[in-house]
Amino acid sequence: MRVNDKNYRTVWMQENTVFLINQNLLPFRFELFESSDWETSCMVIQTMIVRGAGAIGATAGFAMAQAALQAPEADYINYLLEAKTAIEATRPTAQNLFAATARVHAKALISRDEAVNEAQQIAQEDLDACMTIGKLGNTLIPDQARIETHCNAGWLAFVDHGSALSPIYEAAKQGKKPFVLVDETRPRSQGARLTAWELFNEHIQHRIIADNAGAHYMSHGMVDLMIVGADRIAANGDVANKIGTLEKAIVAKEYGIPFYVAAPSMTIDWLCATGVDIPIEERSEEEVLFQTGINKSGELTTIQVASPESEAWNPAFDVTPAHLIHAIITEKGIFKPSELNRMQ
Amino acid sequence: MRVNDKNYRTVWMQENTVFLINQNLLPFRFELFESSDWETSCMVIQTMIVRGAGAIGATAGFAMAQAALQAPEADYINYLLEAKTAIEATRPTAQNLFAATARVHAKALISRDEAVNEAQQIAQEDLDACMTIGKLGNTLIPDQARIETHCNAGWLAFVDHGSALSPIYEAAKQGKKPFVLVDETRPRSQGARLTAWELFNEHIQHRIIADNAGAHYMSHGMVDLMIVGADRIAANGDVANKIGTLEKAIVAKEYGIPFYVAAPSMTIDWLCATGVDIPIEERSEEEVLFQTGINKSGELTTIQVASPESEAWNPAFDVTPAHLIHAIITEKGIFKPSELNRMQ
Repeated sequence: MRVNDKNYRTVWMQENTVFLINQNLLPFRFELFESSDWETSCMVIQTMIVRGAGAIGATAGFAMAQAALQAPEADYINYLLEAKTAIEATRPTAQNLFAATARVHAKALISRDEAVNEAQQIAQEDLDACMTIGKLGNTLIPDQARIETHCNAGWLAFVDHGSALSPIYEAAKQGKKPFVLVDETRPRSQGARLTAWELFNEHIQHRIIADNAGAHYMSHGMVDLMIVGADRIAANGDVANKIGTLEKAIVAKEYGIPFYVAAPSMTIDWLCATGVDIPIEERSEEEVLFQTGINKSGELTTIQVASPESEAWNPAFDVTPAHLIHAIITEKGIFKPSELNRMQ
Repeated sequence: MRVNDKNYRTVWMQENTVFLINQNLLPFRFELFESSDWETSCMVIQTMIVRGAGAIGATAGFAMAQAALQAPEADYINYLLEAKTAIEATRPTAQNLFAATARVHAKALISRDEAVNEAQQIAQEDLDACMTIGKLGNTLIPDQARIETHCNAGWLAFVDHGSALSPIYEAAKQGKKPFVLVDETRPRSQGARLTAWELFNEHIQHRIIADNAGAHYMSHGMVDLMIVGADRIAANGDVANKIGTLEKAIVAKEYGIPFYVAAPSMTIDWLCATGVDIPIEERSEEEVLFQTGINKSGELTTIQVASPESEAWNPAFDVTPAHLIHAIITEKGIFKPSELNRMQ
């Protein structure tokens, strides 16, 4: 990830410290956050200093490794288990989180060093998978394609490269000149804030649109394909992703527009038979009723944007059924959702 | 419309002054705006101090009457025509605007008094039509229905009562206890700001949801029906309404949820054969990139909510094809979109 001409990962670990790009401050400020213990790393996931399936997974793996480093010799096994439970309680939907804690926890039972190595390995695998997804996904993108995407499944959602945006970055490298319609993605506006910022940094043409405008552009033949990420994929190919994904998939079907999901295979939860089994996180209503940005003096400011006496509902994800998805792009190949099990 | 236990219309004219509720300040401040000439009334429409199909229509009618009162004897006919052109240039989509200016202009050619009477008559007809729409639309609402609505087609969008909300107000009066899912309606958030504020004032249970969450609730059987307003209806039953309406109609069809449009018959543009002929207003990208609300000190504040280097597209309306609409509720009866012409 290039920021100010320097290469960054979104999250990395050196000795016992986890370093992260503070995504709550983007795109207005670029700041690193340092977490020197697993409890702080939990807070980092919970408060969305880090967000996005892969980046959450890597952070959770590092947090589990930090727990191994912190665990007192006398109470090592109990301490690890308590830490694992706490890390897994930070956010309920992203499969990568549970896969990472399970893997690092298993290695931690062997040794602290093995735990740290496994966490580093998970981050590296995430990065490699995203790069391969870019190369495979690029084959689905025609020259000068107009691509709609929802939320942020870019660099910032992973350790690097991204899932949904990785094929677009690859297409741009190949000179295909993709154009991206960026769904704002209320309530947290990861599209308007993070995806747009990434695309600007990569010099890729794009426009931000209100989530409401997707069907309008699709109905006018201005969207050639749609690519989104995934927070968890059930064995039958149902996909949990950012709230609003389901809506876009239904509209894309109405207009015969290919709808692709891009995600590392780690996102698949083989124990989830269908999307009904995926828990959906309900987040604070304040995310809908208030909004943060910068005021004219450049200060980060939170304002109330809704009627003060009213309450809100705020589901963070929805489930898109497999039949609405054209294909799932993974590092192991491109699969029809109904044929995901051929990967195993 | 009850505000602080006093009854208001959203717009009215006394002598040569037009009085309006300043909707740009709602729900944070309730203030009246006075316009004493037609030029100011044009500005009022353009800057959305008044918005909503019926309220725009009434204001445009009053503006045309103001022009008749202001027109110099020597240049009466030319002056009127220039004013009419300017009023019609304020916003391109709402049919009510063009219907109102045409009617008042025709009467102004007879006399100033006739122009003023016609403008008052248009406002009264809007109010009466909305009340009848409430009574007719109420017959479509079951007990304890969970109703989703988009944007604001309530009191504030008309002279009083509203179109989409009028049946809900009537159902509440009948003790049916409706529950309303209020689409936030980005980018201007008329749902979160205006519809929620109205429902609170009328003591009707509701929750604000991000526009992205509609499909999620529909897929979980939590929406019994959807009612929206209309800015212009083509002769074949295609409906132009707030951006995002098309998306909801497609999703409602996917889940077999009745999708109703409520609008006074004045909203129908018989000269528009289909929705393709309806001009769609593109508004400033700043509506997407910035947002206004109140800060912790209660001051109205505008903040930037998107990546500062990115641009946005901002279509204000979209067109929902007739085949996605269950029925259109007008003061002349409830019609299938394909049978609208039975009204003529």
